[in-house]
Amino acid sequence: MGTLTTAVLPQWMRKRLDGRLPDYLDVKWWRDEDELVELAPLAEIGWFDLHVKAPALEAIARAEKLRWLSSAYAGVDWMPLEELHDRGVVLSCGAGLAANQVAEFAVMSMLTVARGYREIVRAQDRHDWLPKPPAMRELAGSRAMILGYGAIGQAITRILGGFGVDCIPVRSRPGDGVLGPDEWRSQLPTADWVIVSLPSTPDTAGMFGADALAAMKSDAWLVNYGRAEVVDQDALLDTLEREAIGGAILDLTMPEPLPPDHRLWDLDNAHVTMHLSGYPSHASRARSAERFLDNCERFRNGKPLEGQVDLLRGY
Amino acid sequence: MGTLTTAVLPQWMRKRLDGRLPDYLDVKWWRDEDELVELAPLAEIGWFDLHVKAPALEAIARAEKLRWLSSAYAGVDWMPLEELHDRGVVLSCGAGLAANQVAEFAVMSMLTVARGYREIVRAQDRHDWLPKPPAMRELAGSRAMILGYGAIGQAITRILGGFGVDCIPVRSRPGDGVLGPDEWRSQLPTADWVIVSLPSTPDTAGMFGADALAAMKSDAWLVNYGRAEVVDQDALLDTLEREAIGGAILDLTMPEPLPPDHRLWDLDNAHVTMHLSGYPSHASRARSAERFLDNCERFRNGKPLEGQVDLLRGY
Repeated sequence: MGTLTTAVLPQWMRKRLDGRLPDYLDVKWWRDEDELVELAPLAEIGWFDLHVKAPALEAIARAEKLRWLSSAYAGVDWMPLEELHDRGVVLSCGAGLAANQVAEFAVMSMLTVARGYREIVRAQDRHDWLPKPPAMRELAGSRAMILGYGAIGQAITRILGGFGVDCIPVRSRPGDGVLGPDEWRSQLPTADWVIVSLPSTPDTAGMFGADALAAMKSDAWLVNYGRAEVVDQDALLDTLEREAIGGAILDLTMPEPLPPDHRLWDLDNAHVTMHLSGYPSHASRARSAERFLDNCERFRNGKPLEGQVDLLRGY
Repeated sequence: MGTLTTAVLPQWMRKRLDGRLPDYLDVKWWRDEDELVELAPLAEIGWFDLHVKAPALEAIARAEKLRWLSSAYAGVDWMPLEELHDRGVVLSCGAGLAANQVAEFAVMSMLTVARGYREIVRAQDRHDWLPKPPAMRELAGSRAMILGYGAIGQAITRILGGFGVDCIPVRSRPGDGVLGPDEWRSQLPTADWVIVSLPSTPDTAGMFGADALAAMKSDAWLVNYGRAEVVDQDALLDTLEREAIGGAILDLTMPEPLPPDHRLWDLDNAHVTMHLSGYPSHASRARSAERFLDNCERFRNGKPLEGQVDLLRGY
């Protein structure tokens, strides 16, 4: 038996991993944040995902032997990326694992806006047969700008293609049919839907501000399934209250959860979907387990990991 | 100037037709049901669509000179088809003109069920940030039986294809990848979604009854965007109350409007969308006008009409 590598992994992944882990691992399972913080110093491989970030960050700080940090989250902007880089830790994330479920959710939210489905739900609740539709948009023939063309942006584009939506993808590295960071603003006034599926990085934070909102069509909708930080929320609130655009669908807000007295809740042109789109499903947890097992193999052989984060770019 | 043909047409189409009608027509515009009934006996060409059917049927009965009856409706089961056949009247309908808008609406309703969107709407209304999703289905990888593969069924199939749904189309005349009337029942237990997009005819009325409902998966949903009469509503209500299937999305009910005290309103597994999917939009009215103008040409030249109904088949 050779040297064992210590892996500190979450108990909630145990039933998907037990009996399938490679022999080179000595696994310690953590059940709560106290156990995580206690076990972290042993970890050469760590999986420290926690909904509450402070103890996860403490675990990262205490994990001095850490060489590979695994995460099931697609967004890793809450982690100390520069510090991990300096410590020589590689980070793998869950980018792409929940892309389809997020994309289906985003398209659902667009359709509900297009047909006023919120009013239909309220009408059924009061037993009221509406004589005509609250809204009558069709997606077919409309135009969507896809800001961020990673796994989620690509899945949204594929689905919208089936609806006959003309999609304009945008990403940091432009190419075949994909606009770059300097090209999208001129096209913004042509879009009926502006879909944000960007990570939060120093380049993207606050990128969609008052000027971009002002350039949108007066009946266009902003749809954010990327990161709250990408959109200037104060400028957006002002835009929504002036009814200067059609409205906004926000899976992401600042802060989260939104306090009960926040202005966004009551705006007729704001749809709040409570960061529910990417919530781990059985399917995405199963995919996370598969990625971790594949990555155990890759890590052992010194190969790049699936979902490996470029720590200097931030995604 | 040759002999004129008298056309009795609805005032609500006038702005889309005025100045574009062929010279061979002498047009009388009707504004309400009284004018319609009064003008009908003059009509050689008639367009008698009315939301309330009794006066439209009276107009048809009185229109003894009628040779072509034009309708913008896709469903014509409320008309005296056999009588029109015996009188030698040709009937053109709006089949296909609203297919895309109905298909988008149907897919929207499936997505809202898959993710529990109704609960999300209610949560926003009470300023409540849900900590986890009310439901977590994905369409990708699921299986949908499409009962009725006309324009609506085909549009639904195209859109669901973009989601990665495996569609099983069914129609009266089977063929390449399309099941026939005797083949679909054996496949029913494999479907996660059963989508009805059939016309109401003597063959289809009550076709989806207690036996079909019993053959569905215990978590499958019935989605009716065809005709209420195709589904045995009493058997469906019983099935929903026993929670023997996932639920039903009903654009169509018996009667319409559903009375305020009807049982369907309050069932957690029934979503009532109030026959709103095919409500005429600006786009579909424009397409109706184009079809009528094309058909004026075809009628004049003795050619088959676009959307011409087979009066013996009933669609």
